[in-house]
Amino acid sequence: MPYDPTKLADWQIAEEAEKNMPKPEEWVDRLGLQKDEIIPMGRVCKLDFMKIIERLKDKPDGKYIEVTAITPTPLGEGKSTTSLGLIEGLGKRGKNVGGCLRQPSGGPTMNIKGTAAGGGNALLIPMTEFSMGLTGDINDIMNAHNLAMVALTARMQHERNYTDEQLQRLTGMRRLDVDPTRVEFGWVIDFCAQALRNIIIGIGGRYDGYMMQSKFGIAVSSELMAILSIVTDLADLRKRLDEITLAFDKTGKPIYTKDLEVGGAMCAWMRNTINPTLCCTVEYQPVMVHAGPFANIAVGQSSIIGDRVGLKLFDYHVTESGFGADIGFEKFWNVKCRLSGLKPHVSVLTTTIRALKMHGGGPKVVPGLPLPEEYKKENLELVEKGIPNMVHHINIIRKSGMNPVVCINKFYTDTDEEIKLVRKAAEEAGALCAVSEHWLKGGEGALELADAVIEACEKPTDFKYLYPLEMKLRERVELIAKEVYGADGVAWTPEAEAKAKMLESDPKYDDFMTMMVKTHLSLTHDPTLKGVPKGWVLPIRDVLIYSGAKFLCPCAGTISLMPGTSSNPAFRRVDVDVKTGKVMGLF
Amino acid sequence: MPYDPTKLADWQIAEEAEKNMPKPEEWVDRLGLQKDEIIPMGRVCKLDFMKIIERLKDKPDGKYIEVTAITPTPLGEGKSTTSLGLIEGLGKRGKNVGGCLRQPSGGPTMNIKGTAAGGGNALLIPMTEFSMGLTGDINDIMNAHNLAMVALTARMQHERNYTDEQLQRLTGMRRLDVDPTRVEFGWVIDFCAQALRNIIIGIGGRYDGYMMQSKFGIAVSSELMAILSIVTDLADLRKRLDEITLAFDKTGKPIYTKDLEVGGAMCAWMRNTINPTLCCTVEYQPVMVHAGPFANIAVGQSSIIGDRVGLKLFDYHVTESGFGADIGFEKFWNVKCRLSGLKPHVSVLTTTIRALKMHGGGPKVVPGLPLPEEYKKENLELVEKGIPNMVHHINIIRKSGMNPVVCINKFYTDTDEEIKLVRKAAEEAGALCAVSEHWLKGGEGALELADAVIEACEKPTDFKYLYPLEMKLRERVELIAKEVYGADGVAWTPEAEAKAKMLESDPKYDDFMTMMVKTHLSLTHDPTLKGVPKGWVLPIRDVLIYSGAKFLCPCAGTISLMPGTSSNPAFRRVDVDVKTGKVMGLF
Repeated sequence: MPYDPTKLADWQIAEEAEKNMPKPEEWVDRLGLQKDEIIPMGRVCKLDFMKIIERLKDKPDGKYIEVTAITPTPLGEGKSTTSLGLIEGLGKRGKNVGGCLRQPSGGPTMNIKGTAAGGGNALLIPMTEFSMGLTGDINDIMNAHNLAMVALTARMQHERNYTDEQLQRLTGMRRLDVDPTRVEFGWVIDFCAQALRNIIIGIGGRYDGYMMQSKFGIAVSSELMAILSIVTDLADLRKRLDEITLAFDKTGKPIYTKDLEVGGAMCAWMRNTINPTLCCTVEYQPVMVHAGPFANIAVGQSSIIGDRVGLKLFDYHVTESGFGADIGFEKFWNVKCRLSGLKPHVSVLTTTIRALKMHGGGPKVVPGLPLPEEYKKENLELVEKGIPNMVHHINIIRKSGMNPVVCINKFYTDTDEEIKLVRKAAEEAGALCAVSEHWLKGGEGALELADAVIEACEKPTDFKYLYPLEMKLRERVELIAKEVYGADGVAWTPEAEAKAKMLESDPKYDDFMTMMVKTHLSLTHDPTLKGVPKGWVLPIRDVLIYSGAKFLCPCAGTISLMPGTSSNPAFRRVDVDVKTGKVMGLF
Repeated sequence: MPYDPTKLADWQIAEEAEKNMPKPEEWVDRLGLQKDEIIPMGRVCKLDFMKIIERLKDKPDGKYIEVTAITPTPLGEGKSTTSLGLIEGLGKRGKNVGGCLRQPSGGPTMNIKGTAAGGGNALLIPMTEFSMGLTGDINDIMNAHNLAMVALTARMQHERNYTDEQLQRLTGMRRLDVDPTRVEFGWVIDFCAQALRNIIIGIGGRYDGYMMQSKFGIAVSSELMAILSIVTDLADLRKRLDEITLAFDKTGKPIYTKDLEVGGAMCAWMRNTINPTLCCTVEYQPVMVHAGPFANIAVGQSSIIGDRVGLKLFDYHVTESGFGADIGFEKFWNVKCRLSGLKPHVSVLTTTIRALKMHGGGPKVVPGLPLPEEYKKENLELVEKGIPNMVHHINIIRKSGMNPVVCINKFYTDTDEEIKLVRKAAEEAGALCAVSEHWLKGGEGALELADAVIEACEKPTDFKYLYPLEMKLRERVELIAKEVYGADGVAWTPEAEAKAKMLESDPKYDDFMTMMVKTHLSLTHDPTLKGVPKGWVLPIRDVLIYSGAKFLCPCAGTISLMPGTSSNPAFRRVDVDVKTGKVMGLF
């Protein structure tokens, strides 16, 4: 310890570290749990969140720390690695620390990523379980989701085949009269299956369903996953599962899951997903894994339940939001914390010299192609020019009343002079700043970061939302565009504006959260614009409605709910040692 | 104890019994396991089969008991209930007994059945876990299966979009040149989704897959499930996962999973499925659950691995085969036991007065409609006339050299005179016979059955296969048709015969198993012909080839790999108690 990540692949580091992973009974001792609050599931455990929350309801919460990032390159700037490194660093300082991260989807894992468990000495274990299904939460969501589509499509077939009288006699059901051109819901599968993005189903005869267009999304884009990440308990989950809009009838009225009497069975399939799964870092600090929703149509963060448990069990609880601070942190701040009622203290802004150089005008960074020379050699000018992007993100965090800590995720090519520039700018912008080498050195490499976070946690905070819940949709979007993204204003298409007006006038949507859909590769809606663009207007083309999750999603860009599998996918390199059952080749 | 199944629903009995279910450490003591041979997974455990088999390799096997049935009515004659009742009865007699059963699919469970956990006092617990996904084996199979389709369809897209030179440069891959009209493999989902039976995929542009016809089957019909049920270990699984035929290229050559470099990742997704899951009866005898393949294109039985473990751990190991003895037992006898090399002792033939009356000319039995009067009142003539069906099945069992035991699964409407008739005929045909009331009374009600099975286990056996592996395909089918089904011969369509000749002449297929596809509702291929039809010929229309499972399936009927969801599905009645997380409404 630490392992040498320049010589060992992540799965090899994981294999070594996994030999000494805490057993369930050790977790019970270490975390002060009751025996029935932990549910062993092979090498991991589920935590019985309702029992834990009930027992500790009077215990004060720990410090709540969120990890975000500046506008990233397409390669990502190491937010998960930083979250795990921070947990390890706080652990090395003797703190009672833990965290909660998202569960990765099998799609990206088998496509490009191999895993999403961090890397080097800032790694989550057991890595195979984490990367490949864990205790089955995503599968449970997939089954619950698809059951709704089975219910809908079977109903459409039976309604076509039978008269009202027959329907009533056979099933006691009334005719729903689904408009086949207005089926909103699709199917899900946990892989990047572009071939299923647009499909025609129900080909055949009278008993082969109902012929219509349909679609598959990736399982983690499911509204059910969006719901899991924001519910406060099982009753909340059950209620929302009744309210999902599946389609519209021929008069334009929504058809909900409850109309198909399928919400209860969906909840039964999701019954185990409600409890977070307990994993750990390679330095054995506890890390829960719970939920993994998309960062555009959902919060892109691990669950509220996970944070509630963590704040009771740990003095320092670390979590992470998706994308950069403009998109991910904004949702943490105004949606996740509003729904949970929890008050966060510190936001860690993951920053790399590489990303700052890109914002300063460096050449395009393309995944799969070699990194241009500018990124490997000292170039103070590009760093200097890129710094405003970081400062912009620091200011976003400061608007929430939380204390920002810039973490420079150090690469071995970064020079002292480059780092000095960034540190100076961060401190001038009102943030603490730390350099961290957790990938190379684990917790030892993250001590400076840990100390900065401890210091920031002791400073006073004044957490407040950007807008009150009473603010109308278009005003909210205007405020987010100006205050968070730095736009001059918002331009609604006539269709989107009409929809927004309808939503503003219907009190049913008063408690719906605003969930912006925008690229994470720029502060604007245009992924090619780097740095801090000025003099631009945010276009809104549509507002998506998720009635179960209670989200309204104003769209400043197109979104695909089904990624594609690349021409050189990671599954080619994955295999099993048939003597030991160990999985090899996850990177 | 016993519970009153005339007053309590199965899920209510389960809930009561589950309060005292053995904990992992109790199983370790009771089954004499090492601590690391049991893997707790919530309320159930996985058994580490490789460790157990290795440790006990020199211990003699227990008695191997299979449960089958006469030709059933469409309602089923209670084979699972009888298996569980027998285990309970042997337990009440103080025997070290256990069993292995199939895992049910979510499709039928949410559609008609509600559960497949037996019923009354012959019930498997924990019932919710058993009925709804258990430890995720079916989900793992679904993901592994669909990953192969992702690999195939993505490859077809990339091969269309790129030149040979580009393909080589981007991915190092050669062109497979898949014939889009000859894609054999489909996708799977674990529900009865008739709307996905025939679909068109890949609609859209250049990056939306490859447009072609495609299909979904139910997950348990997957070739991967067929494989899981017959492999002897992980190495065997890994090897077979490389050999699955996905499609043919434009020259007619098969394209295997190994050509897409996806077999290793498929095995990684299936890594946990190799270990059986340990559940128990409501009287707490151990029952493993492992694999749940279709009974037509696969063995329709729980796994060889489960039986290997059970025969080491128990003095009496009970398992069950699908359908009636003509289809299910024949596969147990000639396929499962041949592949495992295990020698079974006793076959229990589940018989009901109801089914015998149907075979004797009673009115049609239709699920969902009230049972005609003939089935509720004494009718010795119908019973007498139906008995030859039972005798035919006894004779099938006797041809294997195993000892038959007829179990009369008693309903409260059955009269003593009716039972006397059946007992006399069974004994004259060379079988032991017992009446059992396990549904009503649990193990106490199954003591007569347990005693008959103990007695039959002590009698000598002379287990031998119906045909040697050297026998050619058409000869095998002829022998099965005549000796097992009672046909006069076999009529091959010209296409099927040409395919059979090709298969007979290619040594590659020499070790492939013969897996008959035929209705279970008649000894013939025609489900309306009851009793023991005479003077008929078995038509064979096609021979399906499963190159990973190494099965050749001669088809005497059409098969659907995707059932439909009915107009009054069971999911309507399933719900969750949000205070306790308990699932209600499974019947």
